[in-house]
Amino acid sequence: MSGIRATIDYLLFDWMNVESLTAHPRFAEHGRNTFDAVLDLCEKLAEEKFAPFNRLVDTEEPVFDGERVTLPAATTEACRAYGESGMLAAAQDYELGGMQLPCVVEMAANSFFSAASIGIKAYSLLTVGNANLLMASGTELQKKVFARNQFAGRFFGTMNLSEPHAGSSLAHILTRAVPDGPEHATDPLGPRYRVSGRKMWISAGEHDIAENIIHLVLAKIPKPDGQLPDGAGGISLFIVPRHLVDSHGRLTGERNDIALAGLNHKLGYRATTNTLLNYGEGRYPVRAPGGTDGRGSGAIGYLVGKPGEGLACMFQMMNEARIQVGMGATMLGFSAYLASLHYARERLQGQSITARGTVKAGVGRAAVPIIDHPDVKRMLLAQKSYCEGALALQLYCSRLVDESRNGDRGEAARASVLLEVLTPIAKSWPSEWCQEGNSLAIQVLGGCGYTRDFPVEQHWRDNRLNMIHEGTHGIHGLDLLGRKVRMQKGLGLRVLLDSMNDSIKKAATLPLSSPLAHILSGTVSSIETDTRAAWVDEDPAAALSNATLYLKAMGHAVIAWMWLELSVTSERRLEEPRSESDKDFHRGKLAAANYFFRYEVPHIEVWSSIVAARDLTCHNTDSAWF
Amino acid sequence: MSGIRATIDYLLFDWMNVESLTAHPRFAEHGRNTFDAVLDLCEKLAEEKFAPFNRLVDTEEPVFDGERVTLPAATTEACRAYGESGMLAAAQDYELGGMQLPCVVEMAANSFFSAASIGIKAYSLLTVGNANLLMASGTELQKKVFARNQFAGRFFGTMNLSEPHAGSSLAHILTRAVPDGPEHATDPLGPRYRVSGRKMWISAGEHDIAENIIHLVLAKIPKPDGQLPDGAGGISLFIVPRHLVDSHGRLTGERNDIALAGLNHKLGYRATTNTLLNYGEGRYPVRAPGGTDGRGSGAIGYLVGKPGEGLACMFQMMNEARIQVGMGATMLGFSAYLASLHYARERLQGQSITARGTVKAGVGRAAVPIIDHPDVKRMLLAQKSYCEGALALQLYCSRLVDESRNGDRGEAARASVLLEVLTPIAKSWPSEWCQEGNSLAIQVLGGCGYTRDFPVEQHWRDNRLNMIHEGTHGIHGLDLLGRKVRMQKGLGLRVLLDSMNDSIKKAATLPLSSPLAHILSGTVSSIETDTRAAWVDEDPAAALSNATLYLKAMGHAVIAWMWLELSVTSERRLEEPRSESDKDFHRGKLAAANYFFRYEVPHIEVWSSIVAARDLTCHNTDSAWF
Repeated sequence: MSGIRATIDYLLFDWMNVESLTAHPRFAEHGRNTFDAVLDLCEKLAEEKFAPFNRLVDTEEPVFDGERVTLPAATTEACRAYGESGMLAAAQDYELGGMQLPCVVEMAANSFFSAASIGIKAYSLLTVGNANLLMASGTELQKKVFARNQFAGRFFGTMNLSEPHAGSSLAHILTRAVPDGPEHATDPLGPRYRVSGRKMWISAGEHDIAENIIHLVLAKIPKPDGQLPDGAGGISLFIVPRHLVDSHGRLTGERNDIALAGLNHKLGYRATTNTLLNYGEGRYPVRAPGGTDGRGSGAIGYLVGKPGEGLACMFQMMNEARIQVGMGATMLGFSAYLASLHYARERLQGQSITARGTVKAGVGRAAVPIIDHPDVKRMLLAQKSYCEGALALQLYCSRLVDESRNGDRGEAARASVLLEVLTPIAKSWPSEWCQEGNSLAIQVLGGCGYTRDFPVEQHWRDNRLNMIHEGTHGIHGLDLLGRKVRMQKGLGLRVLLDSMNDSIKKAATLPLSSPLAHILSGTVSSIETDTRAAWVDEDPAAALSNATLYLKAMGHAVIAWMWLELSVTSERRLEEPRSESDKDFHRGKLAAANYFFRYEVPHIEVWSSIVAARDLTCHNTDSAWF
Repeated sequence: MSGIRATIDYLLFDWMNVESLTAHPRFAEHGRNTFDAVLDLCEKLAEEKFAPFNRLVDTEEPVFDGERVTLPAATTEACRAYGESGMLAAAQDYELGGMQLPCVVEMAANSFFSAASIGIKAYSLLTVGNANLLMASGTELQKKVFARNQFAGRFFGTMNLSEPHAGSSLAHILTRAVPDGPEHATDPLGPRYRVSGRKMWISAGEHDIAENIIHLVLAKIPKPDGQLPDGAGGISLFIVPRHLVDSHGRLTGERNDIALAGLNHKLGYRATTNTLLNYGEGRYPVRAPGGTDGRGSGAIGYLVGKPGEGLACMFQMMNEARIQVGMGATMLGFSAYLASLHYARERLQGQSITARGTVKAGVGRAAVPIIDHPDVKRMLLAQKSYCEGALALQLYCSRLVDESRNGDRGEAARASVLLEVLTPIAKSWPSEWCQEGNSLAIQVLGGCGYTRDFPVEQHWRDNRLNMIHEGTHGIHGLDLLGRKVRMQKGLGLRVLLDSMNDSIKKAATLPLSSPLAHILSGTVSSIETDTRAAWVDEDPAAALSNATLYLKAMGHAVIAWMWLELSVTSERRLEEPRSESDKDFHRGKLAAANYFFRYEVPHIEVWSSIVAARDLTCHNTDSAWF
């Protein structure tokens, strides 16, 4: 009962009652049977095509010979099998070849791939994100040519934001897009531009898994004086395909002027190529405009949405990607948890702590499985509380996506706001704590955990990326305390705390859950007070100096809330258990909930107090003092 | 002023007044000039022979072709240069070719090598530890043949404790040593035995850096009935040289029956071979005893000390190795801190947080060095507080070694007890927190930190070993709460808390340090209370279930104590600063002290309360519930 599927089923059906979504017309043809079928399919595909190659894709890193990038065949095969399964279009309309799956079920089904091989999974994740953006912001033809071909697996996609000099500060990007003459302003694929500049950290930026790679590129359109517009408001978004296509989506045979300048050699997450791309440097001149020296002057790109609205469009993809990053971190945590659990059950060593106190240790006494040692249990409970708590949050957020799209007006509005507030947490919390869990998994395995003969060191390395990409930890702290909890005059925080209070009320009459509810109630009050204290005089320097600690505090509070919800669910199920092993399963959830409230929740106040005190120790440290 | 040397000088001379050690007759010929000369030598050697090859020895992992192990030439050259420098014998008597350096200066000088390349450093570290053990427990001839040749760099050494089935539980080892017949019971090199068994995780177990490898091996001498004796009391210690030597230390040309079964392929720390060794499996039959089939029946080993006292002898080496592990972890923290500090000063990105609130960000405003961002300062201050606080502790412990050996009777006794209590912390705290610091260093570098083009990801990987080897974190928690604080009827804890109270008194009249002293005073009280609470009814299961959290709590308290000491030192120095940069230097120490007390110390009570409450959440979780 300790596998991923059991907990997925529990979260979807016991806790969230996802079947109730079928009351929405969009999901009317679905039911437990179709959801189960998708979960079965994905679990099996992940087990067969992804998991067996996770170490291989780490060892056989993509290689660039100056012309071509070579990936292990396993990566290509797994990505193609994923495309063939129809999962790229799982959430799309039936008429687009999709399954009209609820987002929450799609996310749950995808979790198996993240657990099996995060680095292989990334290719399809970026592709779906790219296509979804185009579905939201593209023209009908852009949807047809670029999005639908991605849903079908013919094309794969990327997002191009960072530049070598500008990672977190997008306002400063220098990639420029110049109109490609009046004759192309009305290109059927969108107003045509010439894009030039350098894009850094582009995941899946080069490979030959699919026929084409559709890059979505942030760039600035110069002002009439040739200068780039200031700030984020000057950023526009472009489709820049690796190979040009006609308005039917057919490859024209022309390569666009996008050159791979190099691959980044990473600590982990090595299955995914990570690239530095040069746009329009003239390496692959394309449809050279008349009157020049015959070399193309920029890669051909098509504007998406309106000029200056690029960042707003991109946020669709980024928000989705952020929850996906959180899910990836979560499932790396889950995989390592299961690996260390397996080891702890099998490995015999030492005597029980009680025996240590009373009986002299010796060969005469049989060694016990190390899972019997309290400190090993602690490391397993911590991991369980991290990865299962985080998984609950990811699926909760996905459910909010469904509600925001399909709920009635009030429900949709509430869901949208709550999703906005939770997004930085859903991205950041698992990135930090499931990675901490990975370290505990190594520790459970001891020396074995430190070798490459066991999978946990790779989980730990792979997961370390997640606090960095899709917005660093620090950036999400600023986003949460600086924007999200204050959005709509504080509605963001209000909606979150109200939701937590609803759970607290539900738990009030349950003997096992009510003590946890009582603790969370105190946390809710102090977060409210401390948030207000942080902003007492509206000074951003004082308020935001400890924003990362606020992110930690709020993250722990949100996961505590998730565990309260699961405690309520399991306490109720224990009233009528289905079997002995069902009892054990729910007792395990209660144990993890208890662990989280007793061992983790008390740290919230430490972090939160520093934020409330507007401690300026760091802010006031002069750079010359280091 | 931000390099390692400046802080080493500060700790040795400003804080600990190490020159006062020259009042001891043993160190009478030393002075600031000789200490400086050794520090200069080591800093230079580390910079020239170790640091430039740290990435290479990670990439070119040792290779075993079934016959021989091949190491990068850089490793061999660096180890030989180290031996030629005389540092292997730095702390030994002049008459043994040593320098009679105080341990604290030897340790400080060695820190440069750990910072430069921990994996290369390990070879000499194990060699010195091995030789020191023999100096303490060996016969005169064992010292002459095996120890002195190690101090001279002719032979290198290892320690062999773990076995494949027994890592943390030494009581269960199965390697056996059988007397090699009465005619060899009086071998000049020591009573001769035949050793057979398998030893796992043996660092530096195979290489060709030196003429010979001297293995110190724990094994059990069977009882007359052929059974191995029970428990740790049945363990004996043997010298098992890779190549046999005569009583003059000359190689006889005979290879001992020690076969390399394989190399472990590690996450990091790759310069150091880590081996599985098979003793006496018959692969290299040696001096086959008569009456057998002509194959040797065991590797030849010489008893050290008395039968059954092996573990006690080995603890000499282990305690030394534990402080060395702590020092290694500390210096990995220091190296990464400096790398991230350098990056943070050079890398331009974003606007200052104050400007963010008041001026719209844009290309019009120049980007600032990221060290100006409060969250980057936080990550740097955290690292600084971890690695410099840990370095203070390592040098403090080394100073205690000097006092325990050279002080008067009362001083020596007190130093010995304090050293015993601090050893698990000196080993474990840097292993956990300087590793956390390494993660922060990656975070400061962002995407760059995740690539292998920058050194910090290697620091992070290398450092992950330190919570595992030389006793896992969990084992040290049990040692601290189960034995060390209770030793000699609680004298262990008493001496530690008294020492902390002495520092608190010193700080009481200083305006900047007294608030920190006040906080630490509260911590001292609560540790005393919580330790008593943990053991209230002498039930080890209840007391020790949270021993790892006790280790965390006590570790943070001890580092807070170190920072109080440094705060006092720097506050006094600021009364008469030598220069503007000296002012900055000491303000930096005060900022780090403040950071540690405000951001880190509050967590102590969270951990300590769980210990005091004897929380059984983990202990009571049934293994079936996971």
